[in-house]
Amino acid sequence: MPVSMLDFFETYIKAHSTFSSEEIAAIKSVAISKRLKKKQYLLRPGDVCRFHTFVCSGCLRYYRLGSDGAEHILSFSPDNHWVSDQVSLSTGSPSDDYIDALEDSDIIQVSADNFRSLMREIPNFDVLHAKIVTEDCGRNRDRIYMMISHQAEERYRQFVRLYPQLYHRIPLFMIASYLGVTRETLTRIRGSANDI
Amino acid sequence: MPVSMLDFFETYIKAHSTFSSEEIAAIKSVAISKRLKKKQYLLRPGDVCRFHTFVCSGCLRYYRLGSDGAEHILSFSPDNHWVSDQVSLSTGSPSDDYIDALEDSDIIQVSADNFRSLMREIPNFDVLHAKIVTEDCGRNRDRIYMMISHQAEERYRQFVRLYPQLYHRIPLFMIASYLGVTRETLTRIRGSANDI
Repeated sequence: MPVSMLDFFETYIKAHSTFSSEEIAAIKSVAISKRLKKKQYLLRPGDVCRFHTFVCSGCLRYYRLGSDGAEHILSFSPDNHWVSDQVSLSTGSPSDDYIDALEDSDIIQVSADNFRSLMREIPNFDVLHAKIVTEDCGRNRDRIYMMISHQAEERYRQFVRLYPQLYHRIPLFMIASYLGVTRETLTRIRGSANDI
Repeated sequence: MPVSMLDFFETYIKAHSTFSSEEIAAIKSVAISKRLKKKQYLLRPGDVCRFHTFVCSGCLRYYRLGSDGAEHILSFSPDNHWVSDQVSLSTGSPSDDYIDALEDSDIIQVSADNFRSLMREIPNFDVLHAKIVTEDCGRNRDRIYMMISHQAEERYRQFVRLYPQLYHRIPLFMIASYLGVTRETLTRIRGSANDI
């Protein structure tokens, strides 16, 4: 099982840039493969985030508790996505947030220190990292744009377009949380959006 | 005037990390100072974003037009903030967005190529860049959290806390656009929030 996760990770990084076989070996040598059970936590408030996490299969969820105890979902990370608390990871400050597994999930982790060494020693790994960060910035910017400019129905349609593999796997109340609408609103939208 | 902008920029970078006088000279040698008039554009849809822009004084605005022609403000950049279309800057793809000056503004620009060289040659410049990117990610994540979990009134209070120097300088309809509420809603909120 661990071998196939590392092979999955290798396929991903090769799809994004060119690496020599020595570079691939160096990257894989610091990549830790791990299996999470559904509902298992990767990060909780007070923890310092120490790893860059890449999802090979399954789906992770990044969320923050409101003062009323409600879970507010900031992102879903299905296969081929990365997840971490970027601020905690870079500054070493404790996180305010949770990361857990929505399904049994296979992940690859690289510690912050090893990740930094790879960026320093392998120029194309630095390029890969810049690409990941840029995509993440772009996604967040587009999400903010949708939040300030579109109604819930169009935001739901956009979610379905962006995550076609996810919307039928995730419980309705979690999609509602991600979109910032009530479950009732989302039920109504889905009822009228069956023709999507 | 250009000298004082470069000095302002030098103070900013020294406050974030340690640089030798040679490194400071190298950074300043590729920094272009520019004065923008109010309403002047720095970026328009179709342009490729070629510069990292740092604001010394004044305020820039980053926005996207909706299909109905409305301006949706994604960020304000007052002094000591950076602004660019990160995706266009890294990928070379044309931008969908506008950046313009809300006030007469003094800025420093560093081209993408020169910025990359500085990151490669000056380790602490790379650290500074990572810090800027992380802060930006954190700000966007917190804004998404506020959007999905808080009502307009609390989001306005948060805006005032984050940008105490801005909220009285920016026209009401622009703050409403940034918050994703109507001007009428914001007027009502401000009326009831005079005790902030």
